[in-house]
Amino acid sequence: MVRSLSQGTALMERARAVIPNGMYGHESVGLLPEGYPQFFAKARGARLWDADGNEYIDYMCAFGPNLFGYGQPEIEAAADAQRALGDTMTGPAEAMIAFAEAMVAQVSHADWAMFCKNGTDATSMAIATARAHTGRGKILVGRGAYHGASGWATQRSSRGLMPEDKAHVIHFRYNDAESLADAARQAGDDLAGILVTPFRHEIFQDQFLPDPEFLQLARQICDRTEALLIVDDVRAGFRLDRDCSIEQFGVSPDLSCWGKAIANGQPISALLGVEKARQAAGSIVATGSFWFSAVPMAAGVATMRKIRETDYLEHTIAMGQALRDGLQQQAAAHGFTLRQTGPAQMPQILFEEDPDFRLGYAWVVEALDRGVYLSPYHNMFLCAALTEADIRLTLDRTDDAFAALKAKRDTVRPLEKIQPLVAAIRAANR
Amino acid sequence: MVRSLSQGTALMERARAVIPNGMYGHESVGLLPEGYPQFFAKARGARLWDADGNEYIDYMCAFGPNLFGYGQPEIEAAADAQRALGDTMTGPAEAMIAFAEAMVAQVSHADWAMFCKNGTDATSMAIATARAHTGRGKILVGRGAYHGASGWATQRSSRGLMPEDKAHVIHFRYNDAESLADAARQAGDDLAGILVTPFRHEIFQDQFLPDPEFLQLARQICDRTEALLIVDDVRAGFRLDRDCSIEQFGVSPDLSCWGKAIANGQPISALLGVEKARQAAGSIVATGSFWFSAVPMAAGVATMRKIRETDYLEHTIAMGQALRDGLQQQAAAHGFTLRQTGPAQMPQILFEEDPDFRLGYAWVVEALDRGVYLSPYHNMFLCAALTEADIRLTLDRTDDAFAALKAKRDTVRPLEKIQPLVAAIRAANR
Repeated sequence: MVRSLSQGTALMERARAVIPNGMYGHESVGLLPEGYPQFFAKARGARLWDADGNEYIDYMCAFGPNLFGYGQPEIEAAADAQRALGDTMTGPAEAMIAFAEAMVAQVSHADWAMFCKNGTDATSMAIATARAHTGRGKILVGRGAYHGASGWATQRSSRGLMPEDKAHVIHFRYNDAESLADAARQAGDDLAGILVTPFRHEIFQDQFLPDPEFLQLARQICDRTEALLIVDDVRAGFRLDRDCSIEQFGVSPDLSCWGKAIANGQPISALLGVEKARQAAGSIVATGSFWFSAVPMAAGVATMRKIRETDYLEHTIAMGQALRDGLQQQAAAHGFTLRQTGPAQMPQILFEEDPDFRLGYAWVVEALDRGVYLSPYHNMFLCAALTEADIRLTLDRTDDAFAALKAKRDTVRPLEKIQPLVAAIRAANR
Repeated sequence: MVRSLSQGTALMERARAVIPNGMYGHESVGLLPEGYPQFFAKARGARLWDADGNEYIDYMCAFGPNLFGYGQPEIEAAADAQRALGDTMTGPAEAMIAFAEAMVAQVSHADWAMFCKNGTDATSMAIATARAHTGRGKILVGRGAYHGASGWATQRSSRGLMPEDKAHVIHFRYNDAESLADAARQAGDDLAGILVTPFRHEIFQDQFLPDPEFLQLARQICDRTEALLIVDDVRAGFRLDRDCSIEQFGVSPDLSCWGKAIANGQPISALLGVEKARQAAGSIVATGSFWFSAVPMAAGVATMRKIRETDYLEHTIAMGQALRDGLQQQAAAHGFTLRQTGPAQMPQILFEEDPDFRLGYAWVVEALDRGVYLSPYHNMFLCAALTEADIRLTLDRTDDAFAALKAKRDTVRPLEKIQPLVAAIRAANR
């Protein structure tokens, strides 16, 4: 049962010499318990292998990009065919048009598309577009919501950032109509846009779906003030719906931000928008060295085809529900209570009565030791390559993990290094 | 001699329906004369083919990324081998460490590396690192210098941006010691960093190399104030030197920003730094969905190997000099005078007595019609795949282009749409 991690440990040592802290960003294991491999040797379908050859059923999907399985053959074939012709060239390929057409056809509010690389590029372009469209400055943003790593978006750490970066950002409490209305009043006649995630998916917290009336209020405020309603669908896009994620709640945005899964792991993000915002979008400064590379666009076209033509969505929802039901039952049988929140295909799994996260952290290590890669603090992602057999295998292993956790319940210690962040998040939510 | 452009024209029509203005960013043909294809079907070595099958010798190299030739076999093989294992995974691959090691070994000032996607990511991370390191805010930036598409960096257009984005940016005149000293005085005790390009490479302008004394002054100011000296080597990196581009002038930076060519067209950029800045770099918020993808890193390792082991640099300089000499001679023979500025392998080619750029614009179209892709306003790039035969072929064609230009010299009209931008640049430089 005990995995060898010696190769991985050696890699982490090597990394510390040439990379600050040995790693950075959302894929750092810095917030994870001991035993999580930092470097991976291989990924295929719904499976990952670490540097020591340990195999895992992967419930993180590269933090979202893996929608149809790592190395999905049809999408890889489309990427390969484009690669044989050209990727990063002196101009884009026809694939750029085809991908824009495919996304505009897929997303009901969209009349046009612009492509970029980072999710942050898309959200930053969205607020620039809203400002260019309205000639105003203020953007309303959910308190604690993650919209990227730029100064205007970051809310927790401020190392290296300037207060002016957020000069025109006003925060509201998600799903709180009064708070949103207050924020809009505060913006007065300078409201450029309202930025919302399709649901709340923040680290170390339960997820929750939007109140349709809250989204409708956001829409009404924008209609009344001619500000733009922006959805940040970078993380959730095409995982809740084949359309923009808030359409299912009866609300249509003016702009939507995409990334992560839209080309099944190829590096590309996108800003989509309605006709009235086209001119403003065409007026902003937006470019990047690799934004017009053709391979991710060809992969994106193939990804859109699979989104249209397969039951990937129903399948991942069914797999997520089967996992959720199974875990709930297992937890209860072993004397634990889980809080499983958010869409089943993007689950957050926390433990009740676990304020310092010690139980959740200990449980995921037991699962990891048994070949199941889960996150104890970040929402997870299921890919369409997961089979019913994978879910059964996962549940066999998590059952053992619960048993192991139960056996050592009284001796589990909290992970000290995460506690300041946990406290900061708790304070921000008060 | 007349190219068919019907397929390309049809693509541009199609693009206008689903992309604002049909295209955006630095690869847009919006500032180019009629006849420039927007979409490309293929790229190989030093050659490009447009959607109509017209073949060009490409002197833009994807605006920099193509250093060793499109589809360079050894680099592609390294990318393919990594791709077979995994690309965008739940964590990075060993290739991340190997690429960081290779860059740290290659760049003399570098003790560590962080990877990102856009050049703008690297420059933005650099200023955040300087601010985190010093606990101060002000960044000195060359007036008119391009350092990316973020609010703090853009200097011309302000559509959708806020004045606060540049609240702590102070501009100086490149190569002007007094202006730099003034800017530093203005920053007072709040100076976090000085950001310089290794040479001046701005659109619609002659390029010029740095005055070593100017760079030394920047170094001295940083030493005296403990601010960080940052080089933006995104565009020029590994095209002037196998080290950071300013090392040849006897000056070593604290941070350097890289991108474009470091993985021969694969999407990756980097921030490198000295030991004393490591902790600050490790403290900033910096991440992106695809920053840890393995394929560009494997391609980067192979690119570093070719940088170390081949004469690519001497070869591209020699090819650039042969082109420059040949063009100078041809221009004189046809009664024109060129201003060919900057490094020969990153040439800017403008015409004397051509204030509205009509001659340059007309000449590049004649060259384009003959299968030579040049820019009339942006610095160009030569790749190592260019052969002496390519240069001879290019010169055969440019000779005809000069002759054609001479024949219609008196009837050439300026391109009206670029004149406001030209005037704005001229005003900013006064």
